[in-house]
Amino acid sequence: MSKGVTPQSQDYAKWYVDVVQKAELADYSPVKGCMVIRPYGYAIWENIKETLDRMFKETGHVNAYFPMLIPESFLKKEADHVEGFAPELAVVTHGGGKKLEEPLVIRPTSETIIWSMYKKWINSYRDLPLLINQWANVVRWEMRTRLFLRTTEFLWQEGHTAHATKEEAVDETLKMVNVYREFAESYMAMPVIVGRKTEKEKFAGAVDTYSIEAMMGDKKALQSGTSHYLGQNFAKAFDVMFQNKNNEQEYVFASSWGVSTRLVGALIMTHGDDKGLILPPKLAPYQVVIVPIYRDEEAKAGVMAYVDGITAELKAKGVRYHVDARETLSPGFKFNDWEMKGVPLRVEVGPRDVEGGNLVCATRFTGEKTVMAKDEFLQGATAMLDDIQDAMLKNRKAFREENTVDVSTYKEMQKATKNGGFARAFWAGTSENEKLIQEQTKATIRCIPFEQSGEEGICFYTGEKTTKQVILAKSY
Amino acid sequence: MSKGVTPQSQDYAKWYVDVVQKAELADYSPVKGCMVIRPYGYAIWENIKETLDRMFKETGHVNAYFPMLIPESFLKKEADHVEGFAPELAVVTHGGGKKLEEPLVIRPTSETIIWSMYKKWINSYRDLPLLINQWANVVRWEMRTRLFLRTTEFLWQEGHTAHATKEEAVDETLKMVNVYREFAESYMAMPVIVGRKTEKEKFAGAVDTYSIEAMMGDKKALQSGTSHYLGQNFAKAFDVMFQNKNNEQEYVFASSWGVSTRLVGALIMTHGDDKGLILPPKLAPYQVVIVPIYRDEEAKAGVMAYVDGITAELKAKGVRYHVDARETLSPGFKFNDWEMKGVPLRVEVGPRDVEGGNLVCATRFTGEKTVMAKDEFLQGATAMLDDIQDAMLKNRKAFREENTVDVSTYKEMQKATKNGGFARAFWAGTSENEKLIQEQTKATIRCIPFEQSGEEGICFYTGEKTTKQVILAKSY
Repeated sequence: MSKGVTPQSQDYAKWYVDVVQKAELADYSPVKGCMVIRPYGYAIWENIKETLDRMFKETGHVNAYFPMLIPESFLKKEADHVEGFAPELAVVTHGGGKKLEEPLVIRPTSETIIWSMYKKWINSYRDLPLLINQWANVVRWEMRTRLFLRTTEFLWQEGHTAHATKEEAVDETLKMVNVYREFAESYMAMPVIVGRKTEKEKFAGAVDTYSIEAMMGDKKALQSGTSHYLGQNFAKAFDVMFQNKNNEQEYVFASSWGVSTRLVGALIMTHGDDKGLILPPKLAPYQVVIVPIYRDEEAKAGVMAYVDGITAELKAKGVRYHVDARETLSPGFKFNDWEMKGVPLRVEVGPRDVEGGNLVCATRFTGEKTVMAKDEFLQGATAMLDDIQDAMLKNRKAFREENTVDVSTYKEMQKATKNGGFARAFWAGTSENEKLIQEQTKATIRCIPFEQSGEEGICFYTGEKTTKQVILAKSY
Repeated sequence: MSKGVTPQSQDYAKWYVDVVQKAELADYSPVKGCMVIRPYGYAIWENIKETLDRMFKETGHVNAYFPMLIPESFLKKEADHVEGFAPELAVVTHGGGKKLEEPLVIRPTSETIIWSMYKKWINSYRDLPLLINQWANVVRWEMRTRLFLRTTEFLWQEGHTAHATKEEAVDETLKMVNVYREFAESYMAMPVIVGRKTEKEKFAGAVDTYSIEAMMGDKKALQSGTSHYLGQNFAKAFDVMFQNKNNEQEYVFASSWGVSTRLVGALIMTHGDDKGLILPPKLAPYQVVIVPIYRDEEAKAGVMAYVDGITAELKAKGVRYHVDARETLSPGFKFNDWEMKGVPLRVEVGPRDVEGGNLVCATRFTGEKTVMAKDEFLQGATAMLDDIQDAMLKNRKAFREENTVDVSTYKEMQKATKNGGFARAFWAGTSENEKLIQEQTKATIRCIPFEQSGEEGICFYTGEKTTKQVILAKSY
């Protein structure tokens, strides 16, 4: 459990798998491409879910639940949509011992089933907007899978909104990608670039796709959340019209947006090091772990009573803590174990600390270990956690800046992204150009960032003049 | 939306469907046997889920997530289990455009996939107990479905625990059925009978099944939660052994337990009346709904400012409230709508109330409507909600007592259960006897209650002497 992991510098992919398994976040299952999310990994997901759910509700959304099984014919109603998802479908052909008349697919995403219901529920502008989110599992048959990052079944949320005007639907799409940005930066301590996807990279069925893109520890990009403006595509596919204020029938405008358990992978790769996970305090299942140290029963009684005093105050302050009272393991083993699991603060309490009214506090992010007065620790605990949260974000911002290069030629772009790293460049190319670049360099245009210099420049690939800048990188 | 429902006395089944649809709890989907849980219904489920999740965590459980797709061969490893579930399976035969080598079934329950993982995780007594719960969707191909009560796909939680001794596993099984009882009575205001299932009625793969049984408004029984002692059945099927403290290899002991979205159906049928839902305050999405009443913009300004004052105080008290500010609907329509949706307290505020510092408060459960001073209402709101919660439970307890009859002959038993109603009887029969009784009367033994008189009596069916009493009823 607490044995070391492969160093990042030696094999980043292996480091990642080692951390996932040794921190007991997830495990391979007997079902190809499907993983088991273990309790510690699930506790992180629960914190992610709870926070996002609150943010969705604060922005006026409600939750609902739609069937997981979708008639195969539904997928075919939106041409781009079926083209994008057909190769990835899992198909139920038998139910209750009989062959089904029409096969059912397990949802790869729920636009089709949801819009078939919206047809029933939407008649007038008074029924709009509909702002519905769903927490659910989805299945996409993937050839190459990676724990959390790409699995055949995964957990996610999918928002599906319906609006009376294009403007409202676009506003919603942008609002939600900004909710994701806010969540990534303020909770995951993960800086992200927010922007629009190119035509080539957008969602199958969308008019426009927006995403948040983060830089992982190996400098590759990870698309961490997407928000799609769907125009009237699904309304037309499912014939969802409404009577507007002028008594005219009009097709409804739509958005959809989602993040998944992939975010757990993002957390691991954004912050982890060769000792394992480093969790931002706001999402850590335990913010403080306490390791009591003693040699005999007498010392134990004193130490545990002292620990009780500490936990009572942490509880009152709303700090999430855990006392590691396992009897058969050494303190050294426990230290390594909680470092692997990325707990922000570790407190060690031995008989001498009890005597002196002290404790030892080790900070996972900085690696610092200091003796402190117990009261000093308790008074400062919340602020220390806040400081760690801020420092982690700053650290990752600096890391991304260091590894982002402005490039003006194809050669420079290749150099900047070859071993990870973001290239920022002017771009005036086509989807065809993008495909060639991807074939030659394995890098893709991650997004057209909202933040643009506004200056004019020369496209690194076509040589044309343009004001459009893009971010290129290899990605997961 | 707010039109009336079929009276219970006329057609209870139709009343139920009407309430589900008119209160916008759920809707039929285009997929046979699958329903859509609409936002208002899902909000009730969220409250159920949040409460139970807290209770599970307080009793030492953690959440995890296991794959939804299970190799077909796994189901066959436990003989009773496969016999019970084989007729209900949905089978995935194709994935990613190809026929699968081995078909995968969508979990009807997760014992098999979970125990295949427990084999990897459990080696020694130090790894025990494992106390894992999962919130998930499951699929059981049902012939006849009913919204919430029996649907092909449903949402539930399933606890799966592993223990070093039989005693511990049995204790866990009983602890959890008591958590369900506590939840049913204290939150759902639904009295339940806790007991053991007969051999005929137990879970496929269990040694013993315990359940909570509630009486619905039509006096039929609804099994509302089950907890199974699984013995070593699944440990043997998946070869899960551990080294005990004496260094011997031993099979692990198990429990599993679950409740589902069926509980929403239970809530509806326990409390609902001909005006619709009646929700217990602890689970109601909105505990108070406020309907502002005005004729012109000037009056509106005054009323809305007054309402703001009310909501500020309700918020401070932690009361869940909603202001129905819909512009295009009449107050009368709104009253009916919120009665249909079962909101415990409705507050009406018009210009005259503002002048007098009053409001009108209508209690859904009692039907009472009274003018109160605003401050009186605000000071008393929490207590009023608590009183409603208590009164609802008492009311349902009395209803159940009224409709429970001690019977000593088969004829009496048939009379007592024919049109709903519980029969309490001494029982010394066999599974064969049970089958005959079910065929002849449609009633079944719901459980052998934990609460027994201890006296000796005569079995109503076999005439044998016994001390065992059972509850018989028709059920959903």
